[in-house]
Amino acid sequence: MRNLTLLTDLYELTMGQGYFRENRHEEIAVFDVFFRPNKLITYSVAAGMEQAAQYLENLHFAEDDIAYLRSLGIFTEDYLAYLGSLRFTGDVYAVREGEIVFPYEPILTVKAPMIQAQLVETALLTIINHQTLIASKASKICAAAQGDVVMEFGLRRAQGADAGVYGARAAVIGGCNSTSNVYAGKLFDIPVAGTMAHSWVMNFPSETEAFRAYARSFPDNCLLLVDTYDTLRSGVPHAIEVFRELRAAGHEPKGIRLDSGDLAYLSKEARKMLDDAGFEDTIICASGDLDEYSIRSLKEQGAKIDSWGVGTKLITSADMPALGGVYKLAAVYEDGVEIPKIKLSDTTEKITNPSFKEVYRIYDRATDKAIADYITRADEVVDESKPLLLFHPVDTWKRMTVTNFRARKLREPLVMGGKRTAPTLPLQKIAAYCAEEKGRFWEEYTRQDMPHIYKVDLSPALYTLKREMVEKLGKGE
Amino acid sequence: MRNLTLLTDLYELTMGQGYFRENRHEEIAVFDVFFRPNKLITYSVAAGMEQAAQYLENLHFAEDDIAYLRSLGIFTEDYLAYLGSLRFTGDVYAVREGEIVFPYEPILTVKAPMIQAQLVETALLTIINHQTLIASKASKICAAAQGDVVMEFGLRRAQGADAGVYGARAAVIGGCNSTSNVYAGKLFDIPVAGTMAHSWVMNFPSETEAFRAYARSFPDNCLLLVDTYDTLRSGVPHAIEVFRELRAAGHEPKGIRLDSGDLAYLSKEARKMLDDAGFEDTIICASGDLDEYSIRSLKEQGAKIDSWGVGTKLITSADMPALGGVYKLAAVYEDGVEIPKIKLSDTTEKITNPSFKEVYRIYDRATDKAIADYITRADEVVDESKPLLLFHPVDTWKRMTVTNFRARKLREPLVMGGKRTAPTLPLQKIAAYCAEEKGRFWEEYTRQDMPHIYKVDLSPALYTLKREMVEKLGKGE
Repeated sequence: MRNLTLLTDLYELTMGQGYFRENRHEEIAVFDVFFRPNKLITYSVAAGMEQAAQYLENLHFAEDDIAYLRSLGIFTEDYLAYLGSLRFTGDVYAVREGEIVFPYEPILTVKAPMIQAQLVETALLTIINHQTLIASKASKICAAAQGDVVMEFGLRRAQGADAGVYGARAAVIGGCNSTSNVYAGKLFDIPVAGTMAHSWVMNFPSETEAFRAYARSFPDNCLLLVDTYDTLRSGVPHAIEVFRELRAAGHEPKGIRLDSGDLAYLSKEARKMLDDAGFEDTIICASGDLDEYSIRSLKEQGAKIDSWGVGTKLITSADMPALGGVYKLAAVYEDGVEIPKIKLSDTTEKITNPSFKEVYRIYDRATDKAIADYITRADEVVDESKPLLLFHPVDTWKRMTVTNFRARKLREPLVMGGKRTAPTLPLQKIAAYCAEEKGRFWEEYTRQDMPHIYKVDLSPALYTLKREMVEKLGKGE
Repeated sequence: MRNLTLLTDLYELTMGQGYFRENRHEEIAVFDVFFRPNKLITYSVAAGMEQAAQYLENLHFAEDDIAYLRSLGIFTEDYLAYLGSLRFTGDVYAVREGEIVFPYEPILTVKAPMIQAQLVETALLTIINHQTLIASKASKICAAAQGDVVMEFGLRRAQGADAGVYGARAAVIGGCNSTSNVYAGKLFDIPVAGTMAHSWVMNFPSETEAFRAYARSFPDNCLLLVDTYDTLRSGVPHAIEVFRELRAAGHEPKGIRLDSGDLAYLSKEARKMLDDAGFEDTIICASGDLDEYSIRSLKEQGAKIDSWGVGTKLITSADMPALGGVYKLAAVYEDGVEIPKIKLSDTTEKITNPSFKEVYRIYDRATDKAIADYITRADEVVDESKPLLLFHPVDTWKRMTVTNFRARKLREPLVMGGKRTAPTLPLQKIAAYCAEEKGRFWEEYTRQDMPHIYKVDLSPALYTLKREMVEKLGKGE
């Protein structure tokens, strides 16, 4: 395992030096990871908690890390010695991977000695921001594909190897069926997909010979790329010619792939040609700059595409390449007593939610659909037997009372006392959970255009605490 | 070193199986890496060749990689055995890192046995697409900053650890002075920057106490974040208070950082307050969602900012998160004879340039400024003593003849016969080269708005070859 302990912003270490000098480094602090609304976010799919837990369990500075820090000439020897033996000993509460999550709610909370809690900020954000971003994008793309197979094809356009590998993992959590990325396939047991590039076709004296050669190697997995020269006048007829030879030899062909041109028109024409030739069971794959918008448009045009290879725009989340998740101080403990902390802002929505908190998802028992998420102080109890008042945390006149509900804690202990507690789940199980939980949301909340805003409300106790703290700080007390 | 040999698309391996079965896997092929124009690209800064060379030198499947490939059930045992002992034995020609590059020109060319050349496609593109993208973005941001210090602050928003680490490296090549990323700082000897977060300030009973505590730890490097509560009414006055105490104790304060609000207004007011208090030598750093557009706007408004911390929009190249570089077959060799290859397209600009090629940069000897890049067949000689005809590869009536020029080969051997030949350079040297070479371009080519399009032309011999191949293939021969 790579040691990512140095994968942090320098200011985490300078603050650490400061806390160390002030002898406050063992004070317990609580930090929340959450993200803010964005025009493109209707819902998000949490991911990266597995790698976050691995990172925390493995946290330690190697000797040459300490030597490097010493070389910067800004740290004291006693602090460097302290860092040399530092391990993560704190508690982390996090939503499951694949959980559907929304702005403002803490999807991960760190409760740890101050220096540790600061030190891990950057890497936790890097890991969770990235995977949550790509899982969310994949979920939207797969929704547009309406149950068709979606293949993740983005490695060559990923922002480095990790972006390709962990991006493929996140894409599967969000709903993709397979990846072209062999490394990710091996690491996470993801089905891998791929057949040929244009170079293969260009490398034979004729398209037919190229197809025939491929069929010789993969008679039972023969999927041919038909757009190298002219899709309808050359590619599809030549594919059909080779498919006939395959069938005569006792093999059923798999299908064709379109990678350029007017995919709606070409797929419909190619479908007719394949069907007329008796290859109704072959599939048509499409690739080339696809995303949820183009897939939806192609579906509307009646494109005859069975399987979608999605690359650049998925692996980079091209229309929003950063989730922007933040890590904010929520509380510190002095002599075991919680001191809630708040960050003010001129923008009401940007004021943080103070104190160590819990998050519940409230479901209607009649429909099993999610009604709202509900953030409380950690020691509150949600009593399912009593009506629950929900109100908007800014526009407080927007309120409703729910009955006949169940409340589920959205987060679980991921790491306790520095030790991993939540199990490592197979990726397919995480993906299945994501699909299952997404089914508990009315489509109005998850649709691409003009979705309803899902409620993320505060308990009266948390709301009151926040209001009192804002008023006190506003007065400069 | 991580073994990235499996970091490839499955189709590279299925094609490999096909070539192996056809007994064509030892044929030599030539592939070019290049990118196409994009509305955001005026020029790009090449980067990633160092990591590309390391990857190629280290190429080998581990035993468990082969076991994994076997488990897919689609490869033959003789092919798997071949892969098991495969190393990269080919030649790679590439531009230097930090080179200013343009669409269409091959910035890297692989000449290698077919299976190797295909296998390495994906990782080479991943590495070079990513670093070139970020180096280019950084170059534009640093141009907007007009020589001010620019600090790379993006790690927490990077698309995974590699994106943060190699993104920081690329950012320095493009002109950034430092990074917040400690891991990258250690790995590439980049100056690291960082002081405190809002959490530090929130963690003390008052802002002044927080500042004072920081000053105790870093009396000679005291840069204070002043926007936690109220920048002008609280942050700056409190900073000045602590700066006075520092000075009284014999230390000169460093400055302040603004991370939110109207940076133009706040920086001008803060500058006045600092100057009036006698702290004319302190600097003002700004951060918060910056990029080349906002920096330019702030400069135009007369913002008093000395140093820029640029995060999300740099590390993700937010307005264009993928370079889109491709890897296209240019030639194969049969019995040592070059057979040029071409990929047609309905769009003239998308037709590839055939054959094994060379790229020259033509400079005016009178001004030492670059005039055009000039792509030739590999065996052509550019004679500086004779006039050189340049003409547009599509609009061929656009032409000019240059004299008194020098021609520089833009690429050099990076790996020959599988062995690294180009030296590993210190990052600062690469960055210096980039700045120097950028100085050889008229600003008209590199400016942000409506730049002139720099010429990338073909030699008459290459142009003729291309035209003949297009005509032949167009006739279906």
